[in-house]
Amino acid sequence: MLSRLSKQLSLSASTSRNLLFQKRFSPNDGTSLWSCSFATQSGTSTARQSFVADGSMTDKIFASYSVYKGKAALSTSPMLPTFRKLDSGGVKLDRKGSIMLTFWPAVGERKYDWEKKQCFALSATEVGSMINMGPQDTREFFHDPAMLSSNAGQVRKSLSIKPHADGSGYFFSLNVVNNILKTNERLVVPVTAAEFAVMRTAVSFALPRIMGWDQYSNQPLGTAHKNPSKVLPHLTDSEWDK
Amino acid sequence: MLSRLSKQLSLSASTSRNLLFQKRFSPNDGTSLWSCSFATQSGTSTARQSFVADGSMTDKIFASYSVYKGKAALSTSPMLPTFRKLDSGGVKLDRKGSIMLTFWPAVGERKYDWEKKQCFALSATEVGSMINMGPQDTREFFHDPAMLSSNAGQVRKSLSIKPHADGSGYFFSLNVVNNILKTNERLVVPVTAAEFAVMRTAVSFALPRIMGWDQYSNQPLGTAHKNPSKVLPHLTDSEWDK
Amino acid sequence: MLSRLSKQLSLSASTSRNLLFQKRFSPNDGTSLWSCSFATQSGTSTARQSFVADGSMTDKIFASYSVYKGKAALSTSPMLPTFRKLDSGGVKLDRKGSIMLTFWPAVGERKYDWEKKQCFALSATEVGSMINMGPQDTREFFHDPAMLSSNAGQVRKSLSIKPHADGSGYFFSLNVVNNILKTNERLVVPVTAAEFAVMRTAVSFALPRIMGWDQYSNQPLGTAHKNPSKVLPHLTDSEWDK
Amino acid sequence: MLSRLSKQLSLSASTSRNLLFQKRFSPNDGTSLWSCSFATQSGTSTARQSFVADGSMTDKIFASYSVYKGKAALSTSPMLPTFRKLDSGGVKLDRKGSIMLTFWPAVGERKYDWEKKQCFALSATEVGSMINMGPQDTREFFHDPAMLSSNAGQVRKSLSIKPHADGSGYFFSLNVVNNILKTNERLVVPVTAAEFAVMRTAVSFALPRIMGWDQYSNQPLGTAHKNPSKVLPHLTDSEWDK
Repeated sequence: MLSRLSKQLSLSASTSRNLLFQKRFSPNDGTSLWSCSFATQSGTSTARQSFVADGSMTDKIFASYSVYKGKAALSTSPMLPTFRKLDSGGVKLDRKGSIMLTFWPAVGERKYDWEKKQCFALSATEVGSMINMGPQDTREFFHDPAMLSSNAGQVRKSLSIKPHADGSGYFFSLNVVNNILKTNERLVVPVTAAEFAVMRTAVSFALPRIMGWDQYSNQPLGTAHKNPSKVLPHLTDSEWDK
Repeated sequence: MLSRLSKQLSLSASTSRNLLFQKRFSPNDGTSLWSCSFATQSGTSTARQSFVADGSMTDKIFASYSVYKGKAALSTSPMLPTFRKLDSGGVKLDRKGSIMLTFWPAVGERKYDWEKKQCFALSATEVGSMINMGPQDTREFFHDPAMLSSNAGQVRKSLSIKPHADGSGYFFSLNVVNNILKTNERLVVPVTAAEFAVMRTAVSFALPRIMGWDQYSNQPLGTAHKNPSKVLPHLTDSEWDK
Repeated sequence: MLSRLSKQLSLSASTSRNLLFQKRFSPNDGTSLWSCSFATQSGTSTARQSFVADGSMTDKIFASYSVYKGKAALSTSPMLPTFRKLDSGGVKLDRKGSIMLTFWPAVGERKYDWEKKQCFALSATEVGSMINMGPQDTREFFHDPAMLSSNAGQVRKSLSIKPHADGSGYFFSLNVVNNILKTNERLVVPVTAAEFAVMRTAVSFALPRIMGWDQYSNQPLGTAHKNPSKVLPHLTDSEWDK
Repeated sequence: MLSRLSKQLSLSASTSRNLLFQKRFSPNDGTSLWSCSFATQSGTSTARQSFVADGSMTDKIFASYSVYKGKAALSTSPMLPTFRKLDSGGVKLDRKGSIMLTFWPAVGERKYDWEKKQCFALSATEVGSMINMGPQDTREFFHDPAMLSSNAGQVRKSLSIKPHADGSGYFFSLNVVNNILKTNERLVVPVTAAEFAVMRTAVSFALPRIMGWDQYSNQPLGTAHKNPSKVLPHLTDSEWDK
């Protein structure tokens, strides 16, 4: 019962993201295509009043962590959240960030076809579930990118993380059933314990950032008032003369 | 005995915060109301010589981590500390930061009433106690928001964190007895292991920041002196010509 | 044998710090006094060509984590390292940073005498030893603040960290034998598991910073070139036209 | 089989680095020399369109963590990645960063010969493997700095990390067989548990940075719009009037 509630949460989390996407892409673009077009982007958005860039390429950062294995490759990268300004003057998290997992198949000896990539955007709670895994634990997440839209149920994605029999790592498996494109694809990437340790450390670093919590940082006070050109309005002398 | 001393510390910690609040709010405002009005605020303050904003809305950051369950919802967000300038020129932590937990009840199918919210501000030590929990551990914290004021004992808050029988997470329960408003409210939110992992990682990230320790960072030296407009006074060439 | 070598390392680490101090203070000032005068300071220095402030109070940051117990209080705070510019143009760590532990005795009901404080500056390796402790582990560190000077052996400091019998925390004990002032003081502070969790998390956050490793951060590229006034020389268009 | 794939990855990782080096250094320089010349550098590069400095000394940061033992010393320091600008306007990780381990032999009582240093650049995955070690685990990594070049196989480096019999730390052993210089050197440094805890904490801090993930950080919104001179183009009022 708890897990069902939890699943609903993760679904609605990815949904709020995807509904925003729906505004920008016709369903016929194909879910797997557009969702991946954001895989390595630094949380851009065309939403009005977004605090981040207007979708121009200048915001794209490409620094994924990628592992290449026999049948497919897997890359991991953060998608930062977007913020909007409130009439009150405050700033509010708009679209939640995520950790984007991108799978793409091998098509030969160390050759991989990026065009055939499939993505899965982990919500904060799904990231918490992943970094919390013990050596023998298993996880499975379900997403419907078109949930709550007229295409609900047309595309079903499931990600499973299963331990190697010898505890030396995990199998990451992404299954995408797309009734629009009439496709059913499955991509499996074995991840070693060392590679998972990198993923765990890197996504733990990224988690507060995709949540927007790096906004909760203090102004550098020790130096700010030494450099008048950088002093904020509320740090001017007038502040002290009130 | 140790735990009693420890409890005194956490009480006095939250007290120092609340005494400051007393200066700004008439007790009749109702503790639960005003304390929550700061729940998602980035450490604002009206204290004279505060290094952070003067309470204007422009400082508010809304990026809470919220979980919505059957009977209530729970959101977690940092409250940054405030600093004041010393006549000596140094900067000193003024009001300590905290991690604000806000509970608000469900009033229907996926409907929640924010007006009925109740808050609990975890001190640094209470945060340490929470991130230190094992799967079967239990925690209970007691706060008297009006402690040391004429209203001492009028409002009693207790937060308990108890493990699920199957170790799949914790129950977060907040009980608020308000003798001013003649109310006795209890809000319970089940938190899954995955959600707790997010809370643990996020508040561990926030802990040094609510303590003000992110002030202890080095100036970026590798590049600062390349960009004269950003060079600090003590980094100017004259420094090298002494 | 390894532990002896390790001890030598930690001694020489604190020594290099203290020898610098010797240049600025007459031994008669009393080691315990002057070392504490730096307890809550953000790595200032009067060393020529230091990259940090010239010792003016404007650099002082006071955000210690303090616990107050029956017989004494203990505060923990980072001391940032200092850097110097090389003729080559590079920047080099000059004086290593540390985590300063300051003990001061109780002189009545919740009254403490800051004038009687005693300090112990943990080196990076000693911090590693502390954050690595299991619930039943014990640690003991020895410092001679005047080591390698004419006053070698005149002041001996030892810090011991011993677990509570019930595993509910640790006793932090500082013993200072000062043959100059003819004093032998011992200060003991019980630290709860929750308080130790705060110390562990906070000093783990501070460790890379007292090592100067926060200098190893990338320039923010995603946005730098959008804001000409902030572009670094090597980021100007001329860079691309080479 | 997994471990073989994993090894191929780590080899190709260090290779991509080394092939870049090949462009700038004649093989006769000797691998150990040029690779170490970058040991304590903050990710400089002479590659065209690099986002970091053009190799001038001004970028060098020297803040290694070093341990000095009976027969050799070992220093650890991050090498930041380099980035390049895409015609599209995005920024892409160019040369991957690493954690550089530098060994140099003792030549007397506390005397060490830096000229005889040998280096080993740990890739992100090798760092993950190291921070993931249990008290009794062993690791061994193999690098061919000239891999895929005409000098492939001429220089073979292997790093092994083996636990002390009593679990009190690890032996770090670097073996370098250089068929160009006709040398076969072995350097061994015992690392205590405390020192390894510092290394683990420090490289865990550095890991997201050598991966370039610190680029994935949010703009400080709470204050940016208060300081017009720092507002980014997409944050101007015009943004809100669209």
